[in-house]
Amino acid sequence: MLDGFSFALLGRDGGARLGEFRTPHGVVQTPAFMPVGTQGSVKAMRHRDLEEAGAQIVLGNTYHLYLRPGDQLIARRGGLHRFIGWPHPILTDSGGYQVFSLAERRKIVEDGAEFRSHLDGSLHLLTPEGAVDIQARLGSDIAMALDECLAYPATRDVAAYSMERSVRWGGRCRKRLIAIRAGDAVGVGITNPGQAQFGIVQGGVFQDLRDQSAAATTEIGFEGYAIGGLSVGEPIDVMYGIVAETARRLPPTEPRYLMGAGTPEDLVECVARGIDMFDCVLPTRNARNGQLFTSEGRLNIKNARYAEDDGPVDPACRCYTCRTHSRAYLRHLYLAGEMTAGALNTLHNLSFYLDTMRRIREAISFRTFDKFRQEFLRSASRLSLDS
Amino acid sequence: MLDGFSFALLGRDGGARLGEFRTPHGVVQTPAFMPVGTQGSVKAMRHRDLEEAGAQIVLGNTYHLYLRPGDQLIARRGGLHRFIGWPHPILTDSGGYQVFSLAERRKIVEDGAEFRSHLDGSLHLLTPEGAVDIQARLGSDIAMALDECLAYPATRDVAAYSMERSVRWGGRCRKRLIAIRAGDAVGVGITNPGQAQFGIVQGGVFQDLRDQSAAATTEIGFEGYAIGGLSVGEPIDVMYGIVAETARRLPPTEPRYLMGAGTPEDLVECVARGIDMFDCVLPTRNARNGQLFTSEGRLNIKNARYAEDDGPVDPACRCYTCRTHSRAYLRHLYLAGEMTAGALNTLHNLSFYLDTMRRIREAISFRTFDKFRQEFLRSASRLSLDS
Repeated sequence: MLDGFSFALLGRDGGARLGEFRTPHGVVQTPAFMPVGTQGSVKAMRHRDLEEAGAQIVLGNTYHLYLRPGDQLIARRGGLHRFIGWPHPILTDSGGYQVFSLAERRKIVEDGAEFRSHLDGSLHLLTPEGAVDIQARLGSDIAMALDECLAYPATRDVAAYSMERSVRWGGRCRKRLIAIRAGDAVGVGITNPGQAQFGIVQGGVFQDLRDQSAAATTEIGFEGYAIGGLSVGEPIDVMYGIVAETARRLPPTEPRYLMGAGTPEDLVECVARGIDMFDCVLPTRNARNGQLFTSEGRLNIKNARYAEDDGPVDPACRCYTCRTHSRAYLRHLYLAGEMTAGALNTLHNLSFYLDTMRRIREAISFRTFDKFRQEFLRSASRLSLDS
Repeated sequence: MLDGFSFALLGRDGGARLGEFRTPHGVVQTPAFMPVGTQGSVKAMRHRDLEEAGAQIVLGNTYHLYLRPGDQLIARRGGLHRFIGWPHPILTDSGGYQVFSLAERRKIVEDGAEFRSHLDGSLHLLTPEGAVDIQARLGSDIAMALDECLAYPATRDVAAYSMERSVRWGGRCRKRLIAIRAGDAVGVGITNPGQAQFGIVQGGVFQDLRDQSAAATTEIGFEGYAIGGLSVGEPIDVMYGIVAETARRLPPTEPRYLMGAGTPEDLVECVARGIDMFDCVLPTRNARNGQLFTSEGRLNIKNARYAEDDGPVDPACRCYTCRTHSRAYLRHLYLAGEMTAGALNTLHNLSFYLDTMRRIREAISFRTFDKFRQEFLRSASRLSLDS
């Protein structure tokens, strides 16, 4: 086991797992939701807002940080934690997803992904080894292996070829990190010797490919395992099925991370299927667009029905936004284009997500998770108040 | 004296005055700086940020709130304090300045100012009585009389004509408020019976006109007096001269408010000339553009020299931004277009302004204001670090 990172399973209730992992920057209780801090900042949030909302870990996007301000500059600052002033755990992705979704004129070859920056058109090559080195410089507590992100839908052949390449890339990432840990890459400028590395299971919507990928990825051996390439447009039942079947093929002693999901209902449903970690831009992005998650359902604050509504966004919520402001005021701020609208809405949505995780952990520890799950899904929480 | 509002002069040091005024929503220590909350929100700030920075009162813009969400809607919410969730004092302007600077196709007649909304082109007439009624519905603690805002430069004849109209409008405003207080305007829907009203001295850069205006305005009789129409492009020495001469013609027992000023140096210089209250968009607007006020001078955070600067914005500042983040990180956030840049920069600039006011009050109470003033001006504070 890596010095600096460890995972402990503290309880189970059905398929749901209660646990915690330790990192050089502190402990994270699982199941955990990680707010997305794309460019070294969770949009519209200050770090203390995140702490207040209950965030124990945030995600940073390697693609963005590599391009601006640059991983070398961040390493010279002592790493990402010190650069951004966030003393708690950080997970970084590999950069692959943004290369596939954001960069211009990308070309995937066996060596890696060639792409042009969306900022200035400059040419870059992201290899598995490079993704490891960049994240070593950033010094996140958990680094992700580079995988190929498959478009949906894809044929079985394409999915198989892509999955196999992701396995090869995963092996190269692991080899590179082991070399770094052994001191064979002194020029890299690592900033967090206790950094853990997670492998990623791919295979699209084909369960046999997922099984092969899970076997090969666990064979390589990482400190944790992610399920990638879901929540990309496939039917929800297909996603839930893949998550359930894939999770059961991962080592029970390591954390399991479902990348890029999801709605509040997705979190509850995938915890039930054995997932320990989540990240998603939904609560932050939708907040900036005026969509708020509440215990009574989703609402869109720009709706005229809230113009004279003196009540809080969510009567069950104890966040600063709900304690201080009315729907009427939040609607006014949104329509007036005040940036504080984005900040107050984001603070609420993240509080709702993180409070949901807290309630999930509590329910597992009391072994009442199934009851919680049924009530959560029966509540209006999957419905829109404004539909 | 109006029930609900009172001003007490607690000390003097040369021309500088230490005081406090009481309002239905609490006490404000003077000299005071009022952050500008244009649309019911100080841009990029949450209310608790303002409290933390030391704001005791904020300014709301009647023009904006009248057009959106509307003073009638705000009155139905119980007034501006309750609508926006700010329990502390609020001053509202009359709306005149924005009509003159922002509205389209404005036409000034003796009855008032006809204009079209900058939002939707709708036609409106802002009369002195209307400005009083709107502010009565908003329920601010201090309402401003409607004045005519003179463009700079202006001839003496134009300035005289405009000043005389402002005096007539001031008289009508006072008459209307007295009627409201006497219960003769039951349909208005007032939300703060303890609202005070300040008159405004005009007269451009012509001291004899300023003297006439001061005499006529104090003759009408208000709970406080403002000096308007300065900081609009005239030379700084002219402004300081007008402030000094006009302030000495105002009643020593009432608060004096210099509208729309200014730089940190302006605050210190005009306190020395007997001013008790200030408002200005400079700290908030410049923050969003990356200009930061510090004890060592102004700096522009986008400057390349800060790319690897691990120090705080201002080593002498104790605000959250300076306690938590480096110049290098703030520069990154600004260049990356993160809205948190605006929030962190604004929090610092307002903290600097409000801390300057706190130091001014302390210096007056210790009768060391002149020494403070000399040191403040000798420091780099009027210089740019990036020039």
